Amino acid sequence: MKSAGGRLLAGLELDRAAAQPLHQQLYAQLRTQILTGTLPTGTRLPSTRTLVTELGVSRITVVSAFEQLTAEGFLRSRAGDGTYVDTLWSDAAPQRPMSRPPLSERGAATSSRGTDLFSEAPHVWAPAETESFVASQVASSAFPAATWKRLLGRHAGRTDPLAIGYSDPHGHRPLREAIADYVNDVRGLGCTADQIVVTSGAQQAFNVLAVLLLDAGDPVVVEDPGHISGRLAFQSQGCPVRGVPVDNEGAVLPDEHDGAPPARLACLTPARHHPLGIAMSPARRAEWIAWAQRNGSWIVEDDCDSELRYRGKLLPTLFGLDLSRQVITVGSFSKVLAPSIRLGYCVLPEDLVEPFASASSVIGRPPAMVLQLALTDFLAEGHLHSHLRRTRRLYAARQDALLDAIDQQMSHRVQAGPVDAGLHVMGWLREPVDDIEVARGLAAGGVYTYPLGEYKLTRQLPPALLIGFAGTAAEHMPQAVGRMAAAWDRWERTTAGS
Amino acid sequence: MKSAGGRLLAGLELDRAAAQPLHQQLYAQLRTQILTGTLPTGTRLPSTRTLVTELGVSRITVVSAFEQLTAEGFLRSRAGDGTYVDTLWSDAAPQRPMSRPPLSERGAATSSRGTDLFSEAPHVWAPAETESFVASQVASSAFPAATWKRLLGRHAGRTDPLAIGYSDPHGHRPLREAIADYVNDVRGLGCTADQIVVTSGAQQAFNVLAVLLLDAGDPVVVEDPGHISGRLAFQSQGCPVRGVPVDNEGAVLPDEHDGAPPARLACLTPARHHPLGIAMSPARRAEWIAWAQRNGSWIVEDDCDSELRYRGKLLPTLFGLDLSRQVITVGSFSKVLAPSIRLGYCVLPEDLVEPFASASSVIGRPPAMVLQLALTDFLAEGHLHSHLRRTRRLYAARQDALLDAIDQQMSHRVQAGPVDAGLHVMGWLREPVDDIEVARGLAAGGVYTYPLGEYKLTRQLPPALLIGFAGTAAEHMPQAVGRMAAAWDRWERTTAGS
Repeated sequence: MKSAGGRLLAGLELDRAAAQPLHQQLYAQLRTQILTGTLPTGTRLPSTRTLVTELGVSRITVVSAFEQLTAEGFLRSRAGDGTYVDTLWSDAAPQRPMSRPPLSERGAATSSRGTDLFSEAPHVWAPAETESFVASQVASSAFPAATWKRLLGRHAGRTDPLAIGYSDPHGHRPLREAIADYVNDVRGLGCTADQIVVTSGAQQAFNVLAVLLLDAGDPVVVEDPGHISGRLAFQSQGCPVRGVPVDNEGAVLPDEHDGAPPARLACLTPARHHPLGIAMSPARRAEWIAWAQRNGSWIVEDDCDSELRYRGKLLPTLFGLDLSRQVITVGSFSKVLAPSIRLGYCVLPEDLVEPFASASSVIGRPPAMVLQLALTDFLAEGHLHSHLRRTRRLYAARQDALLDAIDQQMSHRVQAGPVDAGLHVMGWLREPVDDIEVARGLAAGGVYTYPLGEYKLTRQLPPALLIGFAGTAAEHMPQAVGRMAAAWDRWERTTAGS
Repeated sequence: MKSAGGRLLAGLELDRAAAQPLHQQLYAQLRTQILTGTLPTGTRLPSTRTLVTELGVSRITVVSAFEQLTAEGFLRSRAGDGTYVDTLWSDAAPQRPMSRPPLSERGAATSSRGTDLFSEAPHVWAPAETESFVASQVASSAFPAATWKRLLGRHAGRTDPLAIGYSDPHGHRPLREAIADYVNDVRGLGCTADQIVVTSGAQQAFNVLAVLLLDAGDPVVVEDPGHISGRLAFQSQGCPVRGVPVDNEGAVLPDEHDGAPPARLACLTPARHHPLGIAMSPARRAEWIAWAQRNGSWIVEDDCDSELRYRGKLLPTLFGLDLSRQVITVGSFSKVLAPSIRLGYCVLPEDLVEPFASASSVIGRPPAMVLQLALTDFLAEGHLHSHLRRTRRLYAARQDALLDAIDQQMSHRVQAGPVDAGLHVMGWLREPVDDIEVARGLAAGGVYTYPLGEYKLTRQLPPALLIGFAGTAAEHMPQAVGRMAAAWDRWERTTAGS
């Protein structure tokens, strides 16, 4: 019979200063010794008395650890014969990561770019030392904090089942009504509240639509360059993506004579191409709808930035132009209000509403109820309209300030022109350098932008940076751009020297 | 040259009482006539003057609609020759849903059960007229509303970038620390904050894990009967599920000699089998861990209801017992706090943390920041511990009251015994009737339960209802059960008569 006095005692280290009680430490360390095979089956443990003396702990500490280990099948007591390592755990295969499975193919692809992309900017930063020109950043100073706090507070203390329990998978009915009013008013969508399903932002909607409409392997058309997260959503659902280029009228139709099976879905940004900022022409809209009908395909219309328009008329949505019910429009309150509230919606043909709501419940369930309740009041009381009026003016001024500052301080680096809508301008680089390297170099200097190179699928693109203007005050813009110019100079010196 | 005076005018119906302005109504109706082919290419429209007269509207109304239609490519003006339907839209394929694509296979499967399941109870109900024994319902009266409201209010008015912008894809760092402390304390998981990723509840975690670890077609083992939403998550990701039965020691291992390729992942509820309530034995835990190692498979441990334990010791998690880093534990605050807050977490082996966080950002992004900030304080200030102590006592009393009431009023219908943990008892039906029919009959009478039949995959199970006790006050229990008995009697008379 093996005995384990020395080996066991040598491996035990109890820390009297730790928050974890001593009996739990003893329990955990003995358990690990058994699981790793350090204490094999049948090993006889030292007596309670020995352990008390050797470890300098109380008897109750040892007994308590032994009892738990015995209850869990690690130890076995024989009457009058001490305590032994039981067969249960020590006879199991030795625990080594020898056969550890890899990630799935799509999981490896989805996660290969790491979490940097989604962080969009440092999560905690010192504004004194950094500048963010991140494209999707909103003006946090303009966030209607007092109103939002008041509306959240109105519902935060509710304990009725509606506010507490699992909620309607379609979203809160009054919120669906308020969203329908809003999109009909602002976007002329011509939909009813029954066609709205509330989501946790646009990203969740892309995933639900992928599950609902696509099987693994079904090809998807995306814009190239295009919306990164949207593309990743379809790829993560096992669907290969094919890029189509973007010209002055918006996304170009795919070649239908290349022998490849037609895509089952196209994901488009007609209101304002992301990231280039082009509004899709009426002719191109007609062509895409005809394409969907001809091929029996779906169109997902990401209506991003449609409300944040500074000049020019909005063209009708694909959803409104399509009578064959093959278009689904996705919207989000991330940019018109704030990314952190994680609320969006889908506008669906009537017969897709129930399937979407069920699939949505499987993928992620509806957003937290207190947020839905607060947003309902925010919309119904007209706060979003006044907030949009205010931020449109604010962002137009910030864009002007950015373009002025670039013109004065950085025209030798980038060429940038005004955009009609959205939160960023394209800064086309004057030199043929790698824009991803530039963005990294600027970030190392505390200045955050997005490189156009990140948005490409296969296409070669001239180098450019997306320079967001919404998050920086107009009066601070010259200084912010000055920091960008300085960071660029520093980076250039570093790379020249290396 | 075709002219369209009569046809066009006959089809127009302007509603002066509608909220939509007249020029928008005229625009929309003309657009539809062109899109549907009612007004074909080249059709000459009546003059502005004619329309003003015939429709009884102002000139500006007609001009405004014409201008918009012209800008969008629906109409074309010829100088001195009137206005015609342009070729752009009317030459496109006639818009009919002739080639409308079907749902994907997995989408059809995922959405086939409709939204009823996920609603879990009527969203808006009159407590005076209905009773809910829904299994996952919490005691809304016990929700710490004042504290929660105070904590939400503390952060709701913040406008700093941390509170407003896109947030850390891993979750708010202090919340990860608070969750690590909590699971180490309550569950002895032995993890660090670096191993925690915050999710929007357990359901989102299942989806992310499916994308991360499984490709379409990879087989998954689930418990039969078992957690419905968990199974649907894997199915919605294109993974076939195989059920394993559940005996008195928990889920039984799959047959490894049937020639089928081993499952790449098993999704288990060891703390308390859902819905049967069995705690997995130490021996079975050891077998599952050996299974995962032998086959190179993952185990997803859904640790549901582990904190809501009324008697007996909690056994260690599979996560804590597994040294080969093949187990991922999923947790949620839906039942310990409230489903409506949509917050949960995943505890991962170190090297899965970054891939999980990236995939999580693709599937659904982290939860709303104000909720993360409030939950951080709720945990760090010790409110969850006192809430758990309070609700454990409350739920134990409600369970006793339910069993007493069943014993006195319904023992001829169901046989129910006490459970050590969780929010529902199993009510085994005395008669061999279809439990799904019974649950529907009771729901029609305003009494909500879940039938065990909904939880089965292929296995034949004796009929039973899951009867939740957490949402009903102990003193109200006799009356609530009385209503169930009465609804059952009514349903039985109805079916007997039909």
